Amino acid sequence: MSELINIGPTNLSAGAGLDFEGWTCPLPLRDSPNILMGHGGGGQMSAELIDHLFIPALGGRAGAESDSAVVELGGVRLAFSTDTFVVRPLFFPGGSIGHLAINGTVNDLAMSGAVPSYLSAGFVLEEGTELSVVGRIAQDMGDAARAAGVSVVTGDTKVVDAGHGDQVYVNTAGVGVVPEGVDIRPDRAAIDDVIIVSGPIGVHGIAIMSVREGLEFGTQMKTDSAALHPLVAEMIKVCPDLHVLRDPTRGGLGTSLNEIARTAGVGVRLVERSIPVPPDVANACAMLGLDPLYVANEGKLVAFVPREHADEVLAAMRAHPLGGGAAIIGECVSEHPGIVVTTTTFGGTRVVDMPLGEQLPRIC
Amino acid sequence: MSELINIGPTNLSAGAGLDFEGWTCPLPLRDSPNILMGHGGGGQMSAELIDHLFIPALGGRAGAESDSAVVELGGVRLAFSTDTFVVRPLFFPGGSIGHLAINGTVNDLAMSGAVPSYLSAGFVLEEGTELSVVGRIAQDMGDAARAAGVSVVTGDTKVVDAGHGDQVYVNTAGVGVVPEGVDIRPDRAAIDDVIIVSGPIGVHGIAIMSVREGLEFGTQMKTDSAALHPLVAEMIKVCPDLHVLRDPTRGGLGTSLNEIARTAGVGVRLVERSIPVPPDVANACAMLGLDPLYVANEGKLVAFVPREHADEVLAAMRAHPLGGGAAIIGECVSEHPGIVVTTTTFGGTRVVDMPLGEQLPRIC
Repeated sequence: MSELINIGPTNLSAGAGLDFEGWTCPLPLRDSPNILMGHGGGGQMSAELIDHLFIPALGGRAGAESDSAVVELGGVRLAFSTDTFVVRPLFFPGGSIGHLAINGTVNDLAMSGAVPSYLSAGFVLEEGTELSVVGRIAQDMGDAARAAGVSVVTGDTKVVDAGHGDQVYVNTAGVGVVPEGVDIRPDRAAIDDVIIVSGPIGVHGIAIMSVREGLEFGTQMKTDSAALHPLVAEMIKVCPDLHVLRDPTRGGLGTSLNEIARTAGVGVRLVERSIPVPPDVANACAMLGLDPLYVANEGKLVAFVPREHADEVLAAMRAHPLGGGAAIIGECVSEHPGIVVTTTTFGGTRVVDMPLGEQLPRIC
Repeated sequence: MSELINIGPTNLSAGAGLDFEGWTCPLPLRDSPNILMGHGGGGQMSAELIDHLFIPALGGRAGAESDSAVVELGGVRLAFSTDTFVVRPLFFPGGSIGHLAINGTVNDLAMSGAVPSYLSAGFVLEEGTELSVVGRIAQDMGDAARAAGVSVVTGDTKVVDAGHGDQVYVNTAGVGVVPEGVDIRPDRAAIDDVIIVSGPIGVHGIAIMSVREGLEFGTQMKTDSAALHPLVAEMIKVCPDLHVLRDPTRGGLGTSLNEIARTAGVGVRLVERSIPVPPDVANACAMLGLDPLYVANEGKLVAFVPREHADEVLAAMRAHPLGGGAAIIGECVSEHPGIVVTTTTFGGTRVVDMPLGEQLPRIC
């Protein structure tokens, strides 16, 4: 970039010797030949990396990502998922990387309707990290696993030289059985489905931001990381034919809804004023110029439910501690397939686009 | 530590005010309150970290580690394993981190006698890494997966800031069904078992060392990373009652044998001259002062076989391309339970101790 800075009008007027052939504009950054933070944000850049690099190389089907894969093994339908956690800071109000590492993978399994059972844990420890830090994280993982009723049965530890890590990175993978008759996946979103969110959005992202940036927003926000499979079990009880579940972490609700709309080829219409955004989140977002629709969540889910079962599902969710704040936020429509729009509080409509990346990196 | 440096004889003779109570010697390093490279070496320090920190925190049984966990899920016996790959350099003679990431987890599953089926992949990418590097690794993973007959069905990508990674770290986890009647685990090692290794040892470690340290050993050593489950299947065919299988990666054969001896409470007696060490490995080790017994392997296994089936198993191994160099290297004895000894080429015996860590860090 430094060469470009010198090319002012004076140089240009000098004329001779400048060769513009083959130059490419350094923007947009998504065309960079190098990995950028945005590639890890869960938005459009992540999707492009997966669809254009990983899927063709590893073999698989692009554009059909769900939180977990469902495979058949020995006659059993198994959900299988993995997630790596690189959140900064390691400890934050209401939780730690340890809680996220367990609940994140448990929830990815739950989003297929599976009963999470066994987890693996892979640690990348940076040389010099205090053992007490590793110990606290492991303890939080143990606590979260016991709370979720899952067992960590296999693991691995690697140590990297100082300056090649960030204290602790944790990967977890998990398996669980998908009950018979349950078939929950993004491409089952259907026109006329009702879209329900399990509670207030944006809390985790703002909680992380408050500690990372040293910001205070009046009251302290706590992350709401939780294992969601007991809530899912209640929902399946009243509606075994749930169409889609999604855990809107990185990239937030807006990204998750875009992915589902694109995968299923349906339009999504939201009603902005029905989306539960806590005042603290709204204030923090207003101050920071963020859109709460793109702020990461933990311990929240969004469900696409056949209209005839929407009321029962909503009631079942509200009756559960993890779904007390559940709300219907929109529906699937035949118009604008693959596009998410929202009616604004002023009566207009706007497109909720797929963001390039998360507004804040290393959020989970 | 800096305070300690100032406490010379002068200070000591000054006498008053010094309080030695509660002081601990900063050596041996294994008592460090911080993570050291040795904690990732797969030896005694790794074992202590797992037994004293991870297992108590996460819940589980110390001292019973095997390459993969075998769990029951939906009536099916499932092997489940995870491994993170942080090897430097990313590409080396005969392979890359991509090959290791697939074969490593496939082999961990195979060491339970399972048929590996599905893998997950979790990437930690460092900001600024060339996409072409990521692409080559993904391609190698795809190639290795196709060669091994497994599918990568779920994945995750995180990006960390420049200076908090080392281009690419890869975690894989995997699942596979354990055939009925097969029960392969370290605590099944029994007195009188015959110990067989599938081929020459130390090749992977020396290959990595040669490129990392810029050393040349006459001929170039290539890593022998390979998926071992087809070899295991042939062994199980002639002996369904195989007792133990182990993939002696980090820490080498010596560490693996020590772990098995301790877990099963049997003595292990090796015959040094029967252990296949290629001349190149022997020369490189002699030059560098390394013991080939502790050098990392890929694409090799060690088996504990009931004596009555040893000849058949050895023949089956030698008939397979991955076991052409198979050799009987020792046996289990009732003397010195938990201890590995070897008869030396000079007719004496020596103890093959559990090393503190791998002689070379970040080997896989």
